[in-house]
Amino acid sequence: MATGTLISLKSRRHAELIPITGEVKESIPPGFNGVCVLFCRHTTAGLTVNENADPDVAHDVLAELDRLVPWNNPRFRHGEGNSAAHVKSSLTGPSLTVPVQDGKLVLGTWQDIYFCEFDGPRSRTVALTLIGA
Amino acid sequence: MATGTLISLKSRRHAELIPITGEVKESIPPGFNGVCVLFCRHTTAGLTVNENADPDVAHDVLAELDRLVPWNNPRFRHGEGNSAAHVKSSLTGPSLTVPVQDGKLVLGTWQDIYFCEFDGPRSRTVALTLIGA
Amino acid sequence: MATGTLISLKSRRHAELIPITGEVKESIPPGFNGVCVLFCRHTTAGLTVNENADPDVAHDVLAELDRLVPWNNPRFRHGEGNSAAHVKSSLTGPSLTVPVQDGKLVLGTWQDIYFCEFDGPRSRTVALTLIGA
Repeated sequence: MATGTLISLKSRRHAELIPITGEVKESIPPGFNGVCVLFCRHTTAGLTVNENADPDVAHDVLAELDRLVPWNNPRFRHGEGNSAAHVKSSLTGPSLTVPVQDGKLVLGTWQDIYFCEFDGPRSRTVALTLIGA
Repeated sequence: MATGTLISLKSRRHAELIPITGEVKESIPPGFNGVCVLFCRHTTAGLTVNENADPDVAHDVLAELDRLVPWNNPRFRHGEGNSAAHVKSSLTGPSLTVPVQDGKLVLGTWQDIYFCEFDGPRSRTVALTLIGA
Repeated sequence: MATGTLISLKSRRHAELIPITGEVKESIPPGFNGVCVLFCRHTTAGLTVNENADPDVAHDVLAELDRLVPWNNPRFRHGEGNSAAHVKSSLTGPSLTVPVQDGKLVLGTWQDIYFCEFDGPRSRTVALTLIGA
């Protein structure tokens, strides 16, 4: 059932939270019951769920992650210079599992699903798998 | 199979880790094999698994998250003033998937499942979905 | 289907990221379609996905987590003295869900699955559950 769906997206900034709830919804057939598993296939990006109403929330989440894990850190060894993005990737995590009832994501009122770009701009993919209950 | 179960809870403090292992266990039928998917439907809360024996661990986890992401930060833009809770929500994450064997959660000896309240007190719900293996 | 698989490992350092992608692959039967759910059964360890090419990335992730959550913190109350490991466990998280297509993990080119040891050396187990799509 719908294994193999890939959501493709292009980030436009170095760091941004890109809502993908719409793309996820389009992949769910009417009446489906179970869970939707999302998996980020990149090591300098992640997935999260957060507020969909005020865009300042996404701004604040990104800014706070930047304050916690600054881009420039003389102790980082990785030659590509993007270790901060790798750390943020592990902090947000690569997989999300969202329940689905009667074809609808069981999100709270204020929740959107976001792709977290930490080292863009790049072309990215998220694997989507539906598992019936 | 058991899609649509909601665990309701009321937090009593501004921030606390509330064990929900008991409520989760009650939702699992005898002999069930598969996984139990938990999903937090709020953007200022999260789910985690941590030690069940010494309550000082929950205290230390909350205190350290507070030190990392202080409530008052003049750089936060979000008008509600609770951006720190949104950040902690993304750090702990909204979904957990716990294996179930013969009707029992496959938790380690010292593990409990916790609802993480970061902006309480509030009424909260966690969606529980059982997926058979 | 393959519930009950346990991956056993022994960490050798106080903190390290141990790649377990090979062990996970060996547990997936040819042609399987669905997801592989991994669950860490310990409260001073976690699971993550990050770069498999340059070992400096794992070093940088661990070092940055150490900088964020230092081992010695006079405010920690937990008598065992390993609260930092408990905090890192909640930051990385206990569960990962990785899609599987035609018997293969749908990982990105640069992704490996890692067991995160935060209070070793110890003997550890990760529960692996396959759920068909």
